Amino acid sequence: MSDPFDLVITRGQIVTPEGVVSGDLAVRGEEIAAIGVELGPAKATVDAQGKYVMPGGVDPHTHIEQMSGMGVMNADTFETATRSAAMGGTTSVISFAAQAKGERLADTVADYSARAAHGAMIDYAFHMTVTDTGVADFKADLGALITAGNRSIKVFTTYNIQLSDAEILGVMSTSRAHGALVCVHAETDAIIAQAKSALIAAGKTAPHHHAASHPRMAEIEAIERICRFAEYLGQPVMIFHVSTTQGAAAVRAARVRGAPVWAETCPHYLFMTEDILRQPGLEGGKWMCSPPQRHVADQEALWDALHAGDVQLVSSDHAPYRFDESGKLSAGPHAGFHEIANGLPGLETRLPLMFDAMVSKGRGGPEGFARLTSAAPAEIYGLPKKGTLAPGMHADITLWDPEKTVTYAENDLHDNVGYNPWVGRTIKGYPTDVWLRGAHIVQNGAFKGTPGTGQKINRPTLAVTPTPPQS
Amino acid sequence: MSDPFDLVITRGQIVTPEGVVSGDLAVRGEEIAAIGVELGPAKATVDAQGKYVMPGGVDPHTHIEQMSGMGVMNADTFETATRSAAMGGTTSVISFAAQAKGERLADTVADYSARAAHGAMIDYAFHMTVTDTGVADFKADLGALITAGNRSIKVFTTYNIQLSDAEILGVMSTSRAHGALVCVHAETDAIIAQAKSALIAAGKTAPHHHAASHPRMAEIEAIERICRFAEYLGQPVMIFHVSTTQGAAAVRAARVRGAPVWAETCPHYLFMTEDILRQPGLEGGKWMCSPPQRHVADQEALWDALHAGDVQLVSSDHAPYRFDESGKLSAGPHAGFHEIANGLPGLETRLPLMFDAMVSKGRGGPEGFARLTSAAPAEIYGLPKKGTLAPGMHADITLWDPEKTVTYAENDLHDNVGYNPWVGRTIKGYPTDVWLRGAHIVQNGAFKGTPGTGQKINRPTLAVTPTPPQS
Amino acid sequence: MSDPFDLVITRGQIVTPEGVVSGDLAVRGEEIAAIGVELGPAKATVDAQGKYVMPGGVDPHTHIEQMSGMGVMNADTFETATRSAAMGGTTSVISFAAQAKGERLADTVADYSARAAHGAMIDYAFHMTVTDTGVADFKADLGALITAGNRSIKVFTTYNIQLSDAEILGVMSTSRAHGALVCVHAETDAIIAQAKSALIAAGKTAPHHHAASHPRMAEIEAIERICRFAEYLGQPVMIFHVSTTQGAAAVRAARVRGAPVWAETCPHYLFMTEDILRQPGLEGGKWMCSPPQRHVADQEALWDALHAGDVQLVSSDHAPYRFDESGKLSAGPHAGFHEIANGLPGLETRLPLMFDAMVSKGRGGPEGFARLTSAAPAEIYGLPKKGTLAPGMHADITLWDPEKTVTYAENDLHDNVGYNPWVGRTIKGYPTDVWLRGAHIVQNGAFKGTPGTGQKINRPTLAVTPTPPQS
Amino acid sequence: MSDPFDLVITRGQIVTPEGVVSGDLAVRGEEIAAIGVELGPAKATVDAQGKYVMPGGVDPHTHIEQMSGMGVMNADTFETATRSAAMGGTTSVISFAAQAKGERLADTVADYSARAAHGAMIDYAFHMTVTDTGVADFKADLGALITAGNRSIKVFTTYNIQLSDAEILGVMSTSRAHGALVCVHAETDAIIAQAKSALIAAGKTAPHHHAASHPRMAEIEAIERICRFAEYLGQPVMIFHVSTTQGAAAVRAARVRGAPVWAETCPHYLFMTEDILRQPGLEGGKWMCSPPQRHVADQEALWDALHAGDVQLVSSDHAPYRFDESGKLSAGPHAGFHEIANGLPGLETRLPLMFDAMVSKGRGGPEGFARLTSAAPAEIYGLPKKGTLAPGMHADITLWDPEKTVTYAENDLHDNVGYNPWVGRTIKGYPTDVWLRGAHIVQNGAFKGTPGTGQKINRPTLAVTPTPPQS
Repeated sequence: MSDPFDLVITRGQIVTPEGVVSGDLAVRGEEIAAIGVELGPAKATVDAQGKYVMPGGVDPHTHIEQMSGMGVMNADTFETATRSAAMGGTTSVISFAAQAKGERLADTVADYSARAAHGAMIDYAFHMTVTDTGVADFKADLGALITAGNRSIKVFTTYNIQLSDAEILGVMSTSRAHGALVCVHAETDAIIAQAKSALIAAGKTAPHHHAASHPRMAEIEAIERICRFAEYLGQPVMIFHVSTTQGAAAVRAARVRGAPVWAETCPHYLFMTEDILRQPGLEGGKWMCSPPQRHVADQEALWDALHAGDVQLVSSDHAPYRFDESGKLSAGPHAGFHEIANGLPGLETRLPLMFDAMVSKGRGGPEGFARLTSAAPAEIYGLPKKGTLAPGMHADITLWDPEKTVTYAENDLHDNVGYNPWVGRTIKGYPTDVWLRGAHIVQNGAFKGTPGTGQKINRPTLAVTPTPPQS
Repeated sequence: MSDPFDLVITRGQIVTPEGVVSGDLAVRGEEIAAIGVELGPAKATVDAQGKYVMPGGVDPHTHIEQMSGMGVMNADTFETATRSAAMGGTTSVISFAAQAKGERLADTVADYSARAAHGAMIDYAFHMTVTDTGVADFKADLGALITAGNRSIKVFTTYNIQLSDAEILGVMSTSRAHGALVCVHAETDAIIAQAKSALIAAGKTAPHHHAASHPRMAEIEAIERICRFAEYLGQPVMIFHVSTTQGAAAVRAARVRGAPVWAETCPHYLFMTEDILRQPGLEGGKWMCSPPQRHVADQEALWDALHAGDVQLVSSDHAPYRFDESGKLSAGPHAGFHEIANGLPGLETRLPLMFDAMVSKGRGGPEGFARLTSAAPAEIYGLPKKGTLAPGMHADITLWDPEKTVTYAENDLHDNVGYNPWVGRTIKGYPTDVWLRGAHIVQNGAFKGTPGTGQKINRPTLAVTPTPPQS
Repeated sequence: MSDPFDLVITRGQIVTPEGVVSGDLAVRGEEIAAIGVELGPAKATVDAQGKYVMPGGVDPHTHIEQMSGMGVMNADTFETATRSAAMGGTTSVISFAAQAKGERLADTVADYSARAAHGAMIDYAFHMTVTDTGVADFKADLGALITAGNRSIKVFTTYNIQLSDAEILGVMSTSRAHGALVCVHAETDAIIAQAKSALIAAGKTAPHHHAASHPRMAEIEAIERICRFAEYLGQPVMIFHVSTTQGAAAVRAARVRGAPVWAETCPHYLFMTEDILRQPGLEGGKWMCSPPQRHVADQEALWDALHAGDVQLVSSDHAPYRFDESGKLSAGPHAGFHEIANGLPGLETRLPLMFDAMVSKGRGGPEGFARLTSAAPAEIYGLPKKGTLAPGMHADITLWDPEKTVTYAENDLHDNVGYNPWVGRTIKGYPTDVWLRGAHIVQNGAFKGTPGTGQKINRPTLAVTPTPPQS
Repeated sequence: MSDPFDLVITRGQIVTPEGVVSGDLAVRGEEIAAIGVELGPAKATVDAQGKYVMPGGVDPHTHIEQMSGMGVMNADTFETATRSAAMGGTTSVISFAAQAKGERLADTVADYSARAAHGAMIDYAFHMTVTDTGVADFKADLGALITAGNRSIKVFTTYNIQLSDAEILGVMSTSRAHGALVCVHAETDAIIAQAKSALIAAGKTAPHHHAASHPRMAEIEAIERICRFAEYLGQPVMIFHVSTTQGAAAVRAARVRGAPVWAETCPHYLFMTEDILRQPGLEGGKWMCSPPQRHVADQEALWDALHAGDVQLVSSDHAPYRFDESGKLSAGPHAGFHEIANGLPGLETRLPLMFDAMVSKGRGGPEGFARLTSAAPAEIYGLPKKGTLAPGMHADITLWDPEKTVTYAENDLHDNVGYNPWVGRTIKGYPTDVWLRGAHIVQNGAFKGTPGTGQKINRPTLAVTPTPPQS
């Protein structure tokens, strides 16, 4: 006869990709033990009547304890970032192990791993950000780190940490040999540079000119280029933060050709437009990010792309800077848009915003929400035991109260940023309880987590067939 | 404390759309009660170690106890057809309530319902085949029957039971007002007629000329036309038995435009080519069906369309005629292709053929197989509690032994047709046990079903928004 | 030493497809003898300084001395129609030899030929309108008439003269065997019938409801269907009077597939919208035609299609009915839209409207205008010696004064219709002189033509390769 | 009365874009005076019976008196190159004024102009090749030179003379401000570099490995990138020497989007494949060029693109190196493919090869040939009075004998290269007589030209509307 369960969450609406089951979800140890009708006996029970039982969220694109390109430090530590994440219903994050120029990648990963091990309160993995391919043993280190479980890489086509075409092709080739996914910030630097210098020369330096400094063509052209590299080498790539109609179309075209390409967008591209940058003084700087928010028609095109499966993920791109001299305003009160760090906090708000849109307002329903925010990132980035509610999976669980309504306030998030970019927005549906591998880390809205209890997620490499590049 | 389960199937590989769970599946009454690790206690257990636990198959396109267009009667009764279905792992079928000319539809449905209630050993529903829109109270009857749970309609664009464009638009409009899906045999009659009479005039009447008598353009044009009607009226349609590359492309194009269009194909289009019609004498007639089998390139295009989601279903199009004077050879031993009834038996072979291709040979895996052959038809045709393994769903379950190899023989099926069109083909993977709503109707390969135990599945109507046609 | 020219038109801007030549154009007999700089000597000269010397216009779609589908007779005879044509710069027309039901086609052609021979003042050819394929010797007659120089056929998919799919395929097959072009009025009758009866049932019978009675989907679906027939048989078709964005796109798609398809539109689709039908009482009936005028976006799409070469022609579709009881109002002053004859006069206005748009306003320039309105129809319909200004071609010439401005008045045309549908519109650029095979039939705006001097244009058959239909 | 003509070419088949005129072509001074039937009187006549009278060829892409990227000097001077051109029927060339690094562009153009003025025997213009944007007054010089009549620029995306993305955008912006066309050798350097170093590392250095060192993806990606730049800035570009199916498709896609893009291909892509590089020893080096020849399917795709108008030009890309130590073999008898200068002679063979294909073998006919090889380059590059036979145009005329058959020999061309890459190929149709602005420079196959009589063609700037880049 079987032992009693450690926990049974009863009478909930259990959301699985195949549909919503009315019933009980049982946990034994760190794993889900059963889903059924009237399960028992249990050492403990939680009544979920009237609530959705969802897989814990997976946020695949976040910046934690990282230095910006302008040398500005993130406001968040692993402790504050993961606290904020958990309070928003997220139980796994992928952050960056960002190489400093001259630094060996193995050192980079070791450094970030140590910091995360100390502070993280939810599970985590790393994308390795490559900024310097000239360090000693670069290729060997990269291969070994992929094999050791870090099977995603980040490169930039712009900023002072950009790689050249030749370096990107080189990183992609090494990646292909070892089975990693290459994630790309894809905007053509030369187009941005030309637009930016024209704006500065014309004295147009207020924050809202940031939008014009990143022409949509920069995104379009870079996406096409990277997709062609992916197609040529047979190397899977993830296009980060697609913001435009044509960028999503370029991804679609590549996928139709059979190129191994995936893409994400972010809530600030789905729910904001560039108009938000028009604020008095430097205030607009709070919402500056790259690529910038676009137009209403782009929002609709991105939703279409999500529904058609051309874009598969919605990440937060959490990039936390305080709106003071330690962060966004490090260049002082008269800074131009080119001197203000780019980025928004988003770890805590990603899921409520998407729940409101997809479940409460109907753009996808609970199954679609669970798939987009948990199952899809876990599958694409290879996070074992994450992303779905099924026996044998980690008991990473979030209870959502679909009737709970929240209006965001000026500074109500649990990160260390000091402002909420969604202030004033009312959303319907909110997470009340969160379990991480069976541990109840958010209880009826109160945080109960402990630094250091998050675990690093070791990821199996991609099984890429060793096809050579096309002739 | 919860009651013991009636049945626990232990240690199986339980296939759900979200993945394969290693564990136990529990049944209480007619429903699945739980999926989990080490479930119990149970009144009975079955050990499924080494086997897949799959949802029972749903075959959405079968002809049972029906008269052919040429006045030839099907070889199968509901009893023989559902016995054959169950032996192949299928637990739900949709057959046709086929209107005779002059007959009121309500009478048609009542007649078929009575026959099925008497003989069926698995659950069933009906598509209402409309052949005469001129009978009294046609529109009122059709609406009432949809509302009563028969929410799919079949129309033909060819054969002597074809409807005109105007009649099809009329049926679609009535359907839209009440919430049914319209299924279409889409081949342009005028193209077939021209090709057929040219062949007959040239004395080309052997069975293999059947292929040329149904030019691929007949399918292509009719699909485009029906998709345009669907788009115009906002009325969902299902394109039956797509056989060509371009037919699948036409469906895709319509879906990209946002037209409410679904499509199916059949195993004989995925695994046979028109070459099979080239046999001595009339022997090729065994494999004659409409549309005919096509080319190898079409097979690949149909697989691509299945994987891309442009075609969503694989049905058997089970159309059983004996290869004797009671069936295929009713016009005698010197018949031309135009005098031989069209159709193949397929209820029992559909799932093993698809399992072999998708699971054993890898074109989709167990989740893909379960989705395509059970979940998708249950969802698209609105069969409550069918199609997936989850608590609260009907306990329609099939155990598959992935190692069991079968080579089909001349007459080894459990229908009443007398020949197996797949004779000589070896497949790997076979169903050993089947439960229908908790009743064990196939036990280790032995049939245990009882006529009349199958139930009619009442289906909720579609929630079509009342948008008028485009101006 | 060469003989003197009969006529030299000096110092004009001579428009040829390759560009505009400043110089002289010389005529000897009925043909152009030379184009050059300072040509001579000549028996007569006309100074064309400041004017364009253009090829005479070719109008490939006009209704003359024809009965409408409702039994209403055209207002124009060949005499009045060709007078009107010449005054607008047109020197060749293709009209219809329209079969009455039960009439042999040879009789139809003989009848129209006799009437045209008596009245025509410009050159002419016939499309043979097929409305009854059941008359004796139909196929043989059709083939013989094509071979005799009448190498275009017209069929309808709607109206009471529509042919069925099977009849259309039959006519196309016969056409293919003899080398004719099949022109199609392509609107799906069943869609129109459904829309029309719904409007009438709702009491919506004012003229402006005519637009809604011809849904754009009727055009789209019929064009796709006919293009598929053309592709299947390898039989060239001309889609008449494309009016919608999607109709033009369907033509383009067919052409990209390699289908032998051409298309035309008309000035009333380029310059009017359905709003023009909204007039007091029955007044809107003056502008009723089929398909109806559409939207501004369709106008732009049609211009794009013309510039891209997807649509190749602009015809007048001259269909002249008086706005009185002999014509549009034959059903009386309380007629519904379905009782009012469809059609607009356009022979005289087609060229000035297009010149104004393409030359004066720049949408194509003089070469583009000459190509679209003369060279293209002459080439596509096979009119020998027509369409361009070059030595050896017929001396069909029009002088255009690019500075002459005209505002159309209520009844200022030279046909017999009694109203000008373009009343109030101001155009820039007007023809002042016209020569037909060297005869000066319009002199400085005054008509000098003579009934019976127009000649029938015998056209060589198409050289269609005898490929069978696709298998 | 008019003066007698200086020359009448009688009884020829005069080829104009609108068709072929049987008649006479008259010349007065340097210009065509008339085209007509029985023109006269004339001071001189040439009987062209049985011959085509064609516009002199325009070759828009040739390398004359230029240093290769590897520092190897062209074999041809302006004298030898233009002699060869004339013997092949060409009367205008565009060659390169190729900037040396550090050299001011004005000096470059002055230098090449002086050399051409001394040697050229046909008319000429220059593309300005930009290799160094860092020289003093670069932008001002470039603008002034465009305005002075040099309205095309060449840039490279590969070789040691490549410009960066930022430099290319800069040149394009300057070009746009002054009205020039930017021509691009578009192959992604990083892809070539990676492929090339892999081949060299593997010891694969024979000439035939040159093909694999230029992967087709290098061309595809670079074309897409440049087309996006063109679209972004609204700056017209010409894609030089398209060699692949997908490259042509990328051009088409850009044009469908409305991007101002043109493209050319060359005879060696239409008539050769990479197999020609497989020869004993270094012999294959004779045919090495960049991009390399491709496959048979690419040849067909390029013909399709020419016929569809997606590719508008066929140039020779004449790049003449002797096959000895002064040229191709400067690195000695053991050179690798990466040490052999790239390029083929083609000025004299371009027209006969295209005439043979288009006129003798029917892929376009005489009008198509004249349009592709004369009218189109004259129009696209803005060569006044060149490209067509019409009164007022330059009397640049070639007589073609359509029956003359030539089999190319080892060294039978009139350049200074020493080998004919088409040796052994038999063509039908050859030029017998050539006039340059009325002067008879080739008489019945004998060269009569004089160095220095060719004139520089000053070209008006493009009228590009001053739209800013897209936001």
